Amino acid sequence: MNHARYASRARWVTDTTVGNAPPGMISFGSGDAYPEGLPDLGDLARVAASSFRQETLQYSGRAGLPELRAWVARHVGEEGVRATPDDVVIVNGAKHALDLVCRLFVDPGDTVIVTTPAYMSALDIFRTYEVQFLEVTQDAEGMRVDDLRDRLRARRNAGSPLPKLLYDVPEFHNPSGVTLSAPRRGALAQLAEEFGFLIVEDDPYRRIRFEGTAVPPIQSCAPPGVVVGIGTFSKLIAPGLRLGWVVATPDIAGRLGRLKSDGGSCPLTQRLIIEYARAGHMEPHLRDLTRTYHAHRDITMEALKRALPGARWSRPQGGYYLWVHLPYGVDADRFAAAAWRHGAEVLPASEFYATAGPATHIRLAYSHASPAEITEGVRRLGKALEEMR
Amino acid sequence: MNHARYASRARWVTDTTVGNAPPGMISFGSGDAYPEGLPDLGDLARVAASSFRQETLQYSGRAGLPELRAWVARHVGEEGVRATPDDVVIVNGAKHALDLVCRLFVDPGDTVIVTTPAYMSALDIFRTYEVQFLEVTQDAEGMRVDDLRDRLRARRNAGSPLPKLLYDVPEFHNPSGVTLSAPRRGALAQLAEEFGFLIVEDDPYRRIRFEGTAVPPIQSCAPPGVVVGIGTFSKLIAPGLRLGWVVATPDIAGRLGRLKSDGGSCPLTQRLIIEYARAGHMEPHLRDLTRTYHAHRDITMEALKRALPGARWSRPQGGYYLWVHLPYGVDADRFAAAAWRHGAEVLPASEFYATAGPATHIRLAYSHASPAEITEGVRRLGKALEEMR
Repeated sequence: MNHARYASRARWVTDTTVGNAPPGMISFGSGDAYPEGLPDLGDLARVAASSFRQETLQYSGRAGLPELRAWVARHVGEEGVRATPDDVVIVNGAKHALDLVCRLFVDPGDTVIVTTPAYMSALDIFRTYEVQFLEVTQDAEGMRVDDLRDRLRARRNAGSPLPKLLYDVPEFHNPSGVTLSAPRRGALAQLAEEFGFLIVEDDPYRRIRFEGTAVPPIQSCAPPGVVVGIGTFSKLIAPGLRLGWVVATPDIAGRLGRLKSDGGSCPLTQRLIIEYARAGHMEPHLRDLTRTYHAHRDITMEALKRALPGARWSRPQGGYYLWVHLPYGVDADRFAAAAWRHGAEVLPASEFYATAGPATHIRLAYSHASPAEITEGVRRLGKALEEMR
Repeated sequence: MNHARYASRARWVTDTTVGNAPPGMISFGSGDAYPEGLPDLGDLARVAASSFRQETLQYSGRAGLPELRAWVARHVGEEGVRATPDDVVIVNGAKHALDLVCRLFVDPGDTVIVTTPAYMSALDIFRTYEVQFLEVTQDAEGMRVDDLRDRLRARRNAGSPLPKLLYDVPEFHNPSGVTLSAPRRGALAQLAEEFGFLIVEDDPYRRIRFEGTAVPPIQSCAPPGVVVGIGTFSKLIAPGLRLGWVVATPDIAGRLGRLKSDGGSCPLTQRLIIEYARAGHMEPHLRDLTRTYHAHRDITMEALKRALPGARWSRPQGGYYLWVHLPYGVDADRFAAAAWRHGAEVLPASEFYATAGPATHIRLAYSHASPAEITEGVRRLGKALEEMR
């Protein structure tokens, strides 16, 4: 029993923490980086902490270091998004970005559009803002924008409340791996204009493309203010840096900065990233990562063919995840539990639904495990399947 | 005009950013560290980023690295607070801690008890949670707990809503510099029990004591769950590390961790702090800081006597701030503006009121400026005063 009463939103938060995986567990659970691919940032960390200490050990501005904001503006500019440093706020990773966007825009009871399935951590954040969900299915071209249009029109005709914002990972969707097609991106931007909702475009995996052609961001084909873009250095360099960004209008960016309760993201790790990029390490590192995860994806798919007969998946052109449709009749929650007992961690579909959905899929992250671990881990998934039959 | 409507709480957030100080400005404004006192963390940063990279470049747990949580438990234990690592959550600085506590406990319309004056950034955070303030004055022993008791009883008798939580900086209060006496700490803990509010004890300056004897934290003399303790490495090592902690019950600590949208505070800077403490640097650094700020305080008071005749202040036994009562009839807002024009930054009393209060004081942070800058800066304050007369 507690001394003081928790806030209403706290009902979405329990103190149950996921236990650490036992030794020997092979993780296909979270999108951790491949350990062998982590760069050695020692020299740059020394420079950032020592030579730049008047900058990196003091408080710094909430919007982020000007050089890093300029780097982000150039980076998204290469994808066709017109941005200046004033449009950029540096934040503590993509989840922090989404949280700040919610703080600025979402009142309890507001409706948020999400795909079904959707990124589980985004759903967790939305829940603490006590939103209503409007869930839209996907097909091979991503979110069914035509379906969304019909439902928005029906709402408008019925005089029902319209959504406040839409959240999507359009490039290599988490968890489904699909990419929203260019025509649908345009249609979605038009819908957002017509119905007055904000599109939150979370784009962590764009640079991890194995094949095919990148689709320009929604933000590049929408008027200013319609899309808030979110990016992260977790997938460009390493997750532990805990830095990402928001690209929005200067008004939105300024207010997001003011809402940052951290008093400015860590200037030490910001400077480390500036120096990493300036030294020219970013592009070679991204090429290495892409090559590595491409190989991991292929090894995983090969192993799955052998170990999980009857399972299906669509081959993602990039990103970190396979969204695996289990063989007919296999319950994903029970399968994930069986896999855990056999020493392999996967996430069941139930983690990825705002409300509910079929227990037919698992998400398999191929980023973290080594080729040998992937082979062994998928073999364990096969054992789990056998056990269930 | 914006595309989507801001949330209700956003009315507390504008995009106006404080301009950077012009060159040559002497800052008594914010509690930055003394630049000459910043440690060289280069070697430890290299070790943290390189040797520990499997830990520091991956995602890490939201509660923080176990070794750092254990360090915090020992650290507050030395002050008499019984804590285990399970009671500790690592966060991105004290402001982030307060924000998380609000997220867990505060619903819009809840009443929060604050001193008048109070730390301006805490007030900013509370405002975005749309609280009502109950303001309590201070005297030389800190918050007037007797006055608070009377008002709480009157509220109870009238059937009015009782406060959800109380926020204070009891040791070297920000901005007033006073320390809450031991008897009042005990009385406050009893009031919290009687009226069921949570005490949020923000204690950043405790180790920067120049003279006199430390008063044990409120948390050390209250039953578990009545006090949430907040601490920060900003004032123990350097602000740029952006790390602090919360000490609470395991239930509260666990939920606060789950509410961290950052997906775990930066493991790289956490490891840096662990190694800094392990190498034995913390205590000598704190002795240096204390010696430095002691000298800064004395130089500031001496200079003020000459430059601002008729001004009064109580001599703080530690911490970063002098709360200066300006000579009779001098308006603090106008004085701060005049000082800025003369090349010295101070914060007027108006920044430190939850609702309103007399424009009689300025806060003068003596942490950042060098002895020579202090002398020159206070001379400029004298010029500003002359100009106003």
